[in-house]
Amino acid sequence: MNIRLQINAIKILSVILLVYFIPVTLLSQNRPVRQLISPEIHNDNSVTFRILAPSAKLVKLHGSWMQNFLEGDIVTPKDSGLFELTTTPLPSEYYSYFFTVDGVRVLDSENPLIVRDGIFNGSALMIPGEKSDLYSVNDVPHGIVQKVWYPSPTLELNRRMYVYTPPGYLESDIKYPVLYLLHGAGGDEEAWTTLGKANNILDNLIAAGKAKPMLVVMTNGVPTDAATVGEAPNFEKKNEFKGSGPGGMISAKFEESLVNDVIPFIEKNYRVYKDKDHRAIAGLSMGGFHTQNIVCANPDKFSYIGVMSMGKFDISKYGEKNNTELRKAQVNTLKNSGVKLFWIGCGKKDFFYDNVVALRKSYDELGLKYIYRESEGGHSWENWRLYLSELAPLLFK
Amino acid sequence: MNIRLQINAIKILSVILLVYFIPVTLLSQNRPVRQLISPEIHNDNSVTFRILAPSAKLVKLHGSWMQNFLEGDIVTPKDSGLFELTTTPLPSEYYSYFFTVDGVRVLDSENPLIVRDGIFNGSALMIPGEKSDLYSVNDVPHGIVQKVWYPSPTLELNRRMYVYTPPGYLESDIKYPVLYLLHGAGGDEEAWTTLGKANNILDNLIAAGKAKPMLVVMTNGVPTDAATVGEAPNFEKKNEFKGSGPGGMISAKFEESLVNDVIPFIEKNYRVYKDKDHRAIAGLSMGGFHTQNIVCANPDKFSYIGVMSMGKFDISKYGEKNNTELRKAQVNTLKNSGVKLFWIGCGKKDFFYDNVVALRKSYDELGLKYIYRESEGGHSWENWRLYLSELAPLLFK
Repeated sequence: MNIRLQINAIKILSVILLVYFIPVTLLSQNRPVRQLISPEIHNDNSVTFRILAPSAKLVKLHGSWMQNFLEGDIVTPKDSGLFELTTTPLPSEYYSYFFTVDGVRVLDSENPLIVRDGIFNGSALMIPGEKSDLYSVNDVPHGIVQKVWYPSPTLELNRRMYVYTPPGYLESDIKYPVLYLLHGAGGDEEAWTTLGKANNILDNLIAAGKAKPMLVVMTNGVPTDAATVGEAPNFEKKNEFKGSGPGGMISAKFEESLVNDVIPFIEKNYRVYKDKDHRAIAGLSMGGFHTQNIVCANPDKFSYIGVMSMGKFDISKYGEKNNTELRKAQVNTLKNSGVKLFWIGCGKKDFFYDNVVALRKSYDELGLKYIYRESEGGHSWENWRLYLSELAPLLFK
Repeated sequence: MNIRLQINAIKILSVILLVYFIPVTLLSQNRPVRQLISPEIHNDNSVTFRILAPSAKLVKLHGSWMQNFLEGDIVTPKDSGLFELTTTPLPSEYYSYFFTVDGVRVLDSENPLIVRDGIFNGSALMIPGEKSDLYSVNDVPHGIVQKVWYPSPTLELNRRMYVYTPPGYLESDIKYPVLYLLHGAGGDEEAWTTLGKANNILDNLIAAGKAKPMLVVMTNGVPTDAATVGEAPNFEKKNEFKGSGPGGMISAKFEESLVNDVIPFIEKNYRVYKDKDHRAIAGLSMGGFHTQNIVCANPDKFSYIGVMSMGKFDISKYGEKNNTELRKAQVNTLKNSGVKLFWIGCGKKDFFYDNVVALRKSYDELGLKYIYRESEGGHSWENWRLYLSELAPLLFK
């Protein structure tokens, strides 16, 4: 009897046991019973969302695919307190959404998948198709995602980061190159895997032969934080439920810690190459700012550089006056240091668009060569996932 | 200037930049602005919960600390649509809670921490004190939590598990013992870290010198599932948003896969001892059932055994008739195999209590020695975290 037949047999037998075990799984945990299917993704990628709200006057759906996300779309009342909305077919993408029920923000109770963006949670939805093929867990070999603590003497903290090791790392004894991948303001060390799906993107690109197997190191860019919300020591005792703000943006201490603490830790403890040509660094928004500061201050460290959705050529560290002359000298040094790839990506609707234009102009004037990728859309994870999927294949080639 | 002074300086400077960057972090992601503090943990461990619900008639709070969890406590309306409830001081524990607003289940929008139990999410709350000291991220060395994929020829799937490596694993070259730790019905490979805080518990016990450094391997006990909800290949295309049911309970195929697939993978790819005296296995509820079946079928594999909140002496595999005689023979073999620890834990209010009494009677009759720990409470993560914290110190001694 093969495994599939066995499982069918087991399913039938399980009906008998359900009488005994349903109370275990549901009542024991004091969990309510599921009542609806939501979201229901139809074959044409339209989606039906459902919520029971017997006393509600106005239910709205707020989806990240909407132009009017904050305004929302009205969900129609049906019988018996059921509200239901079916969308037009949605483009393949990883979305988040929530309901408002008479003005109260409500996640979809029927959907176990939640994604946190900073301090806000949304229900998560992956619509099948070309883009989700890029982001999803597919039937390919998977790397390992590790939550790793490392000492940071520079920041006087033990800190947490995420490390992705590619498929084969565990079983082989070969060395790999490393991409250091930095998040934006409001994010933390979890963002590039939870929102950015970096591990899935790398798994899929590596399986397709499009990217070289590499480690991806995802740090926390807020220098005062040891780890994401709820994961730092003594979080409860501090009685603080707040996310990381933009404060990390202007502390060069994080940038120093990446070079002084993170890279030596990775190169001591993981099976990686230890030279410039096997190190890449990329970041989005605040992480793009960090990236530029790091490579300008350390022209000997990275041969591959990616800046996503960020300009700001001449901001210098510690809130000193903008030092454009210093930055020009740094860029000249960088230019002559043998950078193999300088990649800049920005969306046409990004509010940093003009700033990225100015940044490119500065680099053009200094003769720093870069690849520029202009996408649709704005300052969004849709773009940052796309950029990673386009940048990773260019690394270490 | 030391780092703390620098950070203060940075905070002041950041006020200027906030004008520029708040639009980045908030509007860019189309995120609403936070309006309240909730939960607010007071010094005496009473907690104030707040929610804005301008049109609501009846708001209730449902906390896992309540006897009347499903019924909930009424939250009092204040001015301007604010509803507020302050509890009496809560015992130190890791809790979950949600609101109902006119009957609609609502998570706390002001609290970024969410914990998933099967297919249901709740807002999460850690109350400081003795128990949270056991579960929390404390200022101690931390092990690494890894999400690892492994081949399971037995189940004809590539499957995901969580592997905890203790502090020092990365930096040292010594070998460690392994605890295989199994979840219950409704759970998956994430449950022992998200709900069970197993990594924190081990970090804290190891730092205190109470437990030996060990790996903890946390598998998915549902033989038809590759990984938890949303993490299995092609999850989206299956259009299924359902959690694991009790079906895994009766498939001995999972039990076979643990021995045939998981243990060889761990012992090939991690720096661990490969003998019986350096292997432990423990499980809660369904995982306690799996544990007993595994050790009875493989008396040569584990010297340390833990069964939490589970009896069911004589259920045999594949839904065959209960085979008490076979089980008796297995237990006799196990008894003579040199088990160093057989540990049974059960809460006084557990609905399996009588069944555990019967199990112990069966083991008594057969002369199998065990340690029995009877706790307060029932079939709950409060107990399973407690049991792990008491069991781990007894392993590999």
